[in-house]
Formats: sequence, structure tokens, C-alpha cells
Amino acid sequence: MATLRIAEWSSSLKYTDLPPAVVDAALRSFYNWLGCALGGSNHPTTTTAIKALSPFFGKETSSILGGSARADASHAALINGIASHVHDYDDTHLETIIHPTGPVASAVLAYAEKLASEGRSVSGEDFLIALVVGIEAECKIGLSVWPKHYDIGWHITSSTGSIGAAVATSKLLSLNPSQTAHAIGIACTQVTGLREMFGTDTKSFHVGRSAQNGLLAAILASQGFTSSTIALEAKRGWVNVVGQGVNRLDEFVGSLGKVWEIEKNAFKPFPCGIVVHPVIDGCIQLHKDIKAQGLGVKDIKAVKCKVHPLVLELTGKKTPQDGLQAKFSVYHGGAVGLVLGKAGPAQYADEVVTSQEITSVRDKIDATADEKLGADEAEIVVEFQDGKQLKKHVEHAIGSLEVPITNEQLEEKFLDQVSLVLGQEGAKKASETAWGLKGAGDVAALVKAL
Amino acid sequence: MATLRIAEWSSSLKYTDLPPAVVDAALRSFYNWLGCALGGSNHPTTTTAIKALSPFFGKETSSILGGSARADASHAALINGIASHVHDYDDTHLETIIHPTGPVASAVLAYAEKLASEGRSVSGEDFLIALVVGIEAECKIGLSVWPKHYDIGWHITSSTGSIGAAVATSKLLSLNPSQTAHAIGIACTQVTGLREMFGTDTKSFHVGRSAQNGLLAAILASQGFTSSTIALEAKRGWVNVVGQGVNRLDEFVGSLGKVWEIEKNAFKPFPCGIVVHPVIDGCIQLHKDIKAQGLGVKDIKAVKCKVHPLVLELTGKKTPQDGLQAKFSVYHGGAVGLVLGKAGPAQYADEVVTSQEITSVRDKIDATADEKLGADEAEIVVEFQDGKQLKKHVEHAIGSLEVPITNEQLEEKFLDQVSLVLGQEGAKKASETAWGLKGAGDVAALVKAL
Repeated sequence: MATLRIAEWSSSLKYTDLPPAVVDAALRSFYNWLGCALGGSNHPTTTTAIKALSPFFGKETSSILGGSARADASHAALINGIASHVHDYDDTHLETIIHPTGPVASAVLAYAEKLASEGRSVSGEDFLIALVVGIEAECKIGLSVWPKHYDIGWHITSSTGSIGAAVATSKLLSLNPSQTAHAIGIACTQVTGLREMFGTDTKSFHVGRSAQNGLLAAILASQGFTSSTIALEAKRGWVNVVGQGVNRLDEFVGSLGKVWEIEKNAFKPFPCGIVVHPVIDGCIQLHKDIKAQGLGVKDIKAVKCKVHPLVLELTGKKTPQDGLQAKFSVYHGGAVGLVLGKAGPAQYADEVVTSQEITSVRDKIDATADEKLGADEAEIVVEFQDGKQLKKHVEHAIGSLEVPITNEQLEEKFLDQVSLVLGQEGAKKASETAWGLKGAGDVAALVKAL
Repeated sequence: MATLRIAEWSSSLKYTDLPPAVVDAALRSFYNWLGCALGGSNHPTTTTAIKALSPFFGKETSSILGGSARADASHAALINGIASHVHDYDDTHLETIIHPTGPVASAVLAYAEKLASEGRSVSGEDFLIALVVGIEAECKIGLSVWPKHYDIGWHITSSTGSIGAAVATSKLLSLNPSQTAHAIGIACTQVTGLREMFGTDTKSFHVGRSAQNGLLAAILASQGFTSSTIALEAKRGWVNVVGQGVNRLDEFVGSLGKVWEIEKNAFKPFPCGIVVHPVIDGCIQLHKDIKAQGLGVKDIKAVKCKVHPLVLELTGKKTPQDGLQAKFSVYHGGAVGLVLGKAGPAQYADEVVTSQEITSVRDKIDATADEKLGADEAEIVVEFQDGKQLKKHVEHAIGSLEVPITNEQLEEKFLDQVSLVLGQEGAKKASETAWGLKGAGDVAALVKAL
């Protein structure tokens, strides 16, 4: 009875039931998601989708983030979901590599604005609890089929995201357990996201579409549209069909409210594959050390990195030619860390990637695989012309669960991304507004203030 | 290269390339679909969906069939798709049990009206060729993964229907092969429909949603939104992920344009599971024989049927209490055939199912399984009080490929369904209009005339 159990748990949960650490994690998840959605709002993938679909937009109740455009809640959920994932900069539930906030927050925010347009304002607390139940649902379900589900080819963020978005929107609509179970069923039947689409616009589409799927499911269920209420656990239900033999549903649904998945949500400090992060982290630290020692990057003779074997397998591109290729280059990541002391979206701009300032250092970096190192670990040695050496051992990269990104670092990430869209002042204002979610009386008003 | 091969074939096919039998099959498929969509338009599943989703409707370019309501093309495709499947009365590609026209025609008709609203009218020939390429694509893809795909739990009508609808809408939009391949990719990643939902509103939703999925895919691709162009055949592509080891893609895609799947499309003469059809067919024939012999149904002592074992397994309900239950009762099917000489939607109304006239005969019917009989075969013996007997051996039920339903019978089916929604006169007019599709200069004008 896993489906009904999720529905009952979600339906009865109160904001006051949430431990402070869960509220904090939810707020950070929202804040990080909003930065990504604003930061991705002018990406060609996002603007192409807007151009293609605006002829179908309904009554404009909800915001397309990053500008003044509006759409019906369903299309707003789609577009904001696309934008939030397009830079591969969103959050990660490390155990499942689900990016959990995208599908859920995109649906909830868009629908909160719709409700507000009908005079039913949604508070920050209403919003946060909807976000929490959605994220818990999708991560528990993802854990139930991990790793087989991902291995065979499903993009687990969106395949579970439809269900998370359905649970969250059901919570926002105060649906009862039975209605919520039907919503889960309608979401389960829309299995969106094949990994085959990675590297194309369709990858980000997955996140937006799953937000839409879940929203649609909750809306239909709220009007009595029926579905299976054992959609997850049935013989031919979601878990058996897309888990292909891996089924730990009872175990993980049984831990709802005991183990909070949202507390295990991590935030990428750098807009590239997570395996590069230890090198970038170490190089940024070395940038400071170089300065402190009165040395200059022009004095560097060679940089030797020892890394986990996956780093070279996934990000071994020696001479990236643009920002997208640079995301798959541990050499570029190390170089911007050493030279600029930063590795945000601006440091992945095409003109930075090909600049002499960066390539001259990049070409001095050597990386070798060492199986003894962890995936979030790296050893870096910088050798200078005069024979001096600086060393750094990163045991756990920033952004891992051991060294979580601080709120200040999260804010820096937010401002770096959002200022490219809204400018410095706009980004700062948006950041302050976003941190105010917890006490907000009306989420729609908060969005307007962005 | 199956994905590109489908795209190239579809993109280059001309109306004049279609054999007359294919055009005829397409016209019959459309006509049957339209009758089902009109007939299902006032079903509670359909009206609940309209109620829930009308707040999200965009610019009203397209018809919701059966009334005067209109919606954006995407929502019209969803609603008409639901309506066309809700009575389980639509067509069947017997080799895959795909109901092929629903997803495709729902998308194409809605988008044809949108194009017309922009002054780009779609002719009957344009419509028919789009329908053909969509149906060929979905059936070839369905054959490639049959029967595993269905066995593990996918509702093959909608899981392949999204792709069929994408190919068809791409044809309508005159997309080039590359764009069409991207559209197929975007459709592939939206895998909709679990069999677990059978018996609920969500089953019909599958058909409408797959129409929407395909429409959306083509619209995005038309604006340059990218996807995998090897989405079907890739290692982690659609066929391998949802076919789980069954992969006959090259074989069936290779037969595009040589073997036409639409020619194998069959039409249900009765609104219930296909396994009951031989008994109903035989009983309707016996109804005439009883009359011809001057006998009456009140004189019946017992009715003994021999049927394929599946009949009792799937439709063994002895005392159905309403129309929905009656669809799973070979006894009700036989009784209305004998008593009324008909088994249309009106003979599945709740009040008919529980009427003394029907139940008194129903309770005299006995059915036994006989493994020697085919699934479309039945032997029936009617015994009268005076010892007389009438026998009927149905070798192939009406509606099978061996005994296809004639255009006259298709028309009777259409009128039976549609008159319950539009009245006798309205149904007759709609039927005449629908048959006129082939020569129509503007499909939108044809829809208006309904």
C-alpha cells in the first residue's frame, strides 16, 4: 500500500511537524533552484521553448521567471523547469543523483501564483511544506528503484519528478489521501525522460515536462478523475515496470518522516560535472595561497593533479573550444580556479575558455588517475619556475555532504548566475527576496518582487 | 538509423504514393475514430477532464468534438483523444492490439484547425497522409517490441501513440527529415501509459495525452528544439528501454511502405472486449433465425455456447449490474444479441443490463471453454421449450480481418453512437460530412459542419 501510504503521510503532514533542519534544507533548495531558474531563463533552450509554445499559452496567471512574460500555470511550470536545469547547475540528491527541486518547485510556484490570482494566497510555509513532501516522495521512490532504473536508461530526475510534482501540487491543493493517491497514479503513467537525450535540449525539457505532468495529475485528481491507487506497487505498476527487478519500495516509503531525503540534498558550487569539483575547489584555494605568497600565475611551470579515475573518463577534454566543452574539461576547471579564483557561469563563457590568460595555464595542467582517491578527493601540486611548490589535498570537495556549501557560498552562486540576467542590482534584490520565503504571507507577491 | 529512416520515409511520402486500399483504410479509420470521439464526448471521463482543464485552455483555435466548446490545439487533442477511447469502441491493429487512430487523429485534427485559423487550410488529402504516416510509424514501432512491451505493463496504444502523433504532426507541418527525427526523439522521451490504469479514467487519458505529447514534440522540433536523432535505436533508446530485450526495429522499419499496417486495422462492431464478439455475432444471427422461424425468445429453454478459454477468463461475469460490468459479460452480450438483435452502446445502458427482458434470457445462457476454438470463433446452440434447436457456428466474428465490417456496418455503428449525443438528424449529417473527408478542401470547415 505504498501509494496510499505516501498519500496519507503527505496529506496529514503539518508545517510544525517539520524539523528545523528540514525547513532550512527546503529554503536552501528553493533558493538554489530560483537562482538556477533565473540564470537559465535566457538560455537558447528556454527561449526556443517559449517561442514554440507561447501560441498555446492560456490565461496568464503565472510568471515565466527572469522577465515580465507570463503564462498559464502549466506552461509556466514547463518553462521554469527547463530553465532551472539548463545549466546543469541545480541540486543533487547524491544517493540517487536526482535533481529534486526542479520538477517540484516549478509546479508548486506556478500553481501558487494561479491560486493567488483567484484570491487564495499561498504562504511561504504552505509553499515549503509542499516542496518537502514532493521532494521526499520523489527521492524515496527513486531510492526504491536505484540503481537499475538509471542504468537501463531512465533520467531519474524527471521519471520520479512527475510523481514528486503531483504529490507537492496535491498538498498545495489540500487534496485528501484518496485524491492524492489518484494524482500519484496519473503521474505514474506519464514516465518522462530517457538518458539518451542527454546533450540535447530535450534533457532540460524532461524537468519542465515532469513538473507539468505532476501538476496536471493533481488538477485532474482534484476534480475526481480516477486512476489506480496502487500505481506504484502493483504487479504492473510503476516500480515493477521501470525498476526491472529492483523494488525496495516498502523499505523507503517506510522511512518517510524518519529519514528526510531533503537533508541530503547537495548544491553544486560550480556549473559543471561534479567529478571536476575537487580539482576546482583545490585550485581556488591555491589561487589564494599564490597571492598570499606573493607569487603570480605567470610564474607557474607545471600543475600536477591526482584524481579519481572517473574524472579523466568523464572530463578529460584537453583543449575545450567553448563553454559547453569546458564543462567536460578538468583542465579548464583547474585553470580558472588558479587564475581567477572562481568557477561560476562567467568563467565558462566561450571567450574565457579560449582566452590566452586561461589556456596558457590550462596547458600546463596534467592530471593522472589514482584509484586510491575518492570521487570527491584530489591532490594538486603547483610547481613554479623558481622551484617553489604549493600543494593542496582536498579530502572532500566543497558541495559534498561532508563540506556543504554555506549560505554565503550559495548566495555567491546565486548572484553570479542571476546578475548575468538581471544585472548586479536586480540579482541582489532577487536574492534578498528569495531568502524571505519562509516568512512570506503570499508567494505570488514574492515572485512579483523578483 | 531507424529513427531517421522513419523520418525520411514520412517526410518524402506523397499522397499519390498511397495505394487506393491504404487511402480507403485511412478514411475508414478516420470515420470510425470520429464516431467514437463524438460518441464519447459526453462521457463523465471526458467531461471531468474538460472541467478540470478548461481554466488552462489557450487561444480557442480547435474544436472539442460533440459540442460547441473550443480550446487550444493541445487541449483539444487531449480531450478528443480521451473521448475517442472512453467507450473502448475504437479501432484495433490486431497484431499489436494498438488502437492506432486515437493518438494520431486527435493530434492532427486539432492542429489542422489551428493551421486553418492562421489561414493555412489543410485539405482532406493532407489530413489523410498525415494520418497514414502516423499510424504506420506507431504500428511498426509497436511490432518491434511486441509482445514483451505489452506483457511487462505498457499500454502500447499510448506508448507508441506519442511517436505516431509526432510523426503525423510533423508531416502536417511539412517538417524536413532532420526536424522529424528530433520530433520523434522528443516524443520517445514521453513514455505514457501503464496497463495498471485499466478500469479507471486514466486509461482514456493515455490516448489523449499521447496525442498531446506528439503534438508538442512536433511543435518544439519545428522551432529547432533538439533531441536525439537515434532515439528509437540507441543503446539506451526507446526500444531497448521499454522493449526489454525484444527489438525487431530494423525488420519492421524496413517494411515501411511495403507492408501497410493501416490495412490491418480492424473496427469493433460492439462496444466491449473483442473476445465476446463471436458470441454476440452468432446471437445476432440467431435473433434473425428465431424470427424467421416464427419462434420467440420467451420460448427459449437454454443457450449453450462453446468459446475460446480467454472468453470466460476475461468476460465471465454472470450477473452484471451495470453497463460497465456488462462489457465483461459474455452472457449479457449473448442476451442482447438474441433478444434485441443488436449490441451497440444503447444495449449496454444500465437500464437495459438490469431489465427483466434481458436478464431472463441472460440467465439461461451457459458458456464452456473449448481450447479447439479460435479466439474469434464460437459455437452456439439455442434450445426451445418444445425441443426445437437452432445452431450457429461463427468461424470468424464480424470485425475480424477475415470478415471485416462493411462501410454500411461502420455507418450503423457511427449512427448508433453519435445519435446518443447529436440526435438522429445530427448523427446522419455528421456521418455524411465525415465520409466527405477525402475530397475536402479544408478539414477545419468539415469539422465546423459537424
